[in-house]
Amino acid sequence: MSTTLLLLVIEIIGTIAFAISGIRLAAAKRFDWFGAYVVGLVTAIGGGTLRDILLDAPPFWMVNSWYVSVTGLSLLWVILFRKQLVRLNSTFFIFDTIGLGLFVVIGIQKTLMFGYPMWVAIIMGTITGALGGVIRDILINEVPLIFRKDVYATACIAGGLIYWLALETGMSPAVQQISCAMTVIIVRLLAAKYKWQIPELAKQENEENNNNVRNE
Amino acid sequence: MSTTLLLLVIEIIGTIAFAISGIRLAAAKRFDWFGAYVVGLVTAIGGGTLRDILLDAPPFWMVNSWYVSVTGLSLLWVILFRKQLVRLNSTFFIFDTIGLGLFVVIGIQKTLMFGYPMWVAIIMGTITGALGGVIRDILINEVPLIFRKDVYATACIAGGLIYWLALETGMSPAVQQISCAMTVIIVRLLAAKYKWQIPELAKQENEENNNNVRNE
Amino acid sequence: MSTTLLLLVIEIIGTIAFAISGIRLAAAKRFDWFGAYVVGLVTAIGGGTLRDILLDAPPFWMVNSWYVSVTGLSLLWVILFRKQLVRLNSTFFIFDTIGLGLFVVIGIQKTLMFGYPMWVAIIMGTITGALGGVIRDILINEVPLIFRKDVYATACIAGGLIYWLALETGMSPAVQQISCAMTVIIVRLLAAKYKWQIPELAKQENEENNNNVRNE
Repeated sequence: MSTTLLLLVIEIIGTIAFAISGIRLAAAKRFDWFGAYVVGLVTAIGGGTLRDILLDAPPFWMVNSWYVSVTGLSLLWVILFRKQLVRLNSTFFIFDTIGLGLFVVIGIQKTLMFGYPMWVAIIMGTITGALGGVIRDILINEVPLIFRKDVYATACIAGGLIYWLALETGMSPAVQQISCAMTVIIVRLLAAKYKWQIPELAKQENEENNNNVRNE
Repeated sequence: MSTTLLLLVIEIIGTIAFAISGIRLAAAKRFDWFGAYVVGLVTAIGGGTLRDILLDAPPFWMVNSWYVSVTGLSLLWVILFRKQLVRLNSTFFIFDTIGLGLFVVIGIQKTLMFGYPMWVAIIMGTITGALGGVIRDILINEVPLIFRKDVYATACIAGGLIYWLALETGMSPAVQQISCAMTVIIVRLLAAKYKWQIPELAKQENEENNNNVRNE
Repeated sequence: MSTTLLLLVIEIIGTIAFAISGIRLAAAKRFDWFGAYVVGLVTAIGGGTLRDILLDAPPFWMVNSWYVSVTGLSLLWVILFRKQLVRLNSTFFIFDTIGLGLFVVIGIQKTLMFGYPMWVAIIMGTITGALGGVIRDILINEVPLIFRKDVYATACIAGGLIYWLALETGMSPAVQQISCAMTVIIVRLLAAKYKWQIPELAKQENEENNNNVRNE
């Protein structure tokens, strides 16, 4: 019972962190309040929504109103305390990371519940955690950041693999979930601290020509 | 019976207005006929399609062929009478607005039919009316306009709230729907006339830095 | 049996060709390995995924793991043999075109299997073949190329119309499918050879003003 409550609190904090990241990026693009709200909401629920569509489940935010309201409160908070938010950047980063860990676990559990194999569950866990930010970047017309600084999504995959390992080695569900979330959180924190980067694909001189060839 | 016919006529006019708005923006980006058709079609049916996916209903345009054909006629019309269209801008604006009012009502009704609460129905009504334009702007690689000049979507929400009020106060379905559509139409017309704008979120000096912090 | 095997081989080759086209365009945008993988995967499975969502079918790649793994091998191949790939451009173009023909047939068959009329099946066949490239272009923040050089999608539609003709004239399923695929392939090859282009919609001088009018 108190565990359920704890998880709910973490999920709300994570949702707020995701929503605020979207709202602030929208503000940087001079969006108005409505645009900022939509971008914040999509950042917070976009990943889980595609997951539920792919699983053919009713979208989670349509059966529980607090995701929509918490995003509204996040917007209000940003409007009122905008100037102070900069000081809280590292706090947001922590909350965002904790939320990410939980969202990955939620995505994996739900996918396994629907009878899909673990490799699908890992993809769904990653989508749950990372896709919201991709849609956010598309809405503000930027190249999705995780495709260039992607330890964000890689942390989700790492967590998923640990979940798999714990499952295969017959660990208890609690251990599976906690080890998964902790892996996501630790990998992302270390990646941020030590500026880990996935290698780039070297650009060919005449890449553009190739594209034209490809598309003509 | 004559009401059904009237609604069908309004829906067709609204679909044409939405499609033409997409076709003309695509033309401004030098899209070819096919690209313009796709952008026009997506502008007209995109919102209702996501609504139906989220409701797990068969997409409305897949069970009735006239949306696809009416968009084709709209393209033909633009190709033939392009030069004259500028004179019709205010007419298009009226049709676009009337169509918007109807689409919001359709989205709300369908969502309530599926047993969802009113707050979900209002979101679905807004998605039905406004999302097509967002996908249109993504396809032409522009920042979605309604996030900066958003009285468009706000009018949908206002209409939804009036629908709710009429429902709670036990008005007849006809009154609920007409008051909703009229609210959408009037709010949007007034917003255009008096250049209403939702306030912007002030940009912080070091916003970009924050983003980097967030994403590293 | 050997036919099934042949079709599987063609589908794998087509998937690789689609994935590599996405991976190379991502590389041109300096995406890292993860970003390139995602863009490659979305290019390969994006069209079929939307088709399955619209048909309310389980997404094809979630019930068969080889699409995800073949994309991984494609990424590995690009990483290792990047420099040599330029020489293979025409080969990729052939594979990409053969894959396109097959994907259109698969999309049409599956849609008819779900009991939809032929006009829906042609749209679904085109979505199966062409949408992956559109999502790819949105992810790399470019205007979708097929909207300006669209014989790609037009070839899918042409193939769909031939399928319809073969169906109406009582041809055997094999003939329907082969004639459809061959049409897609031949039309695209001829379009590339003779640089066929669909006409553009002439831009009006004051288009931008119109847009503003439309959106205020």
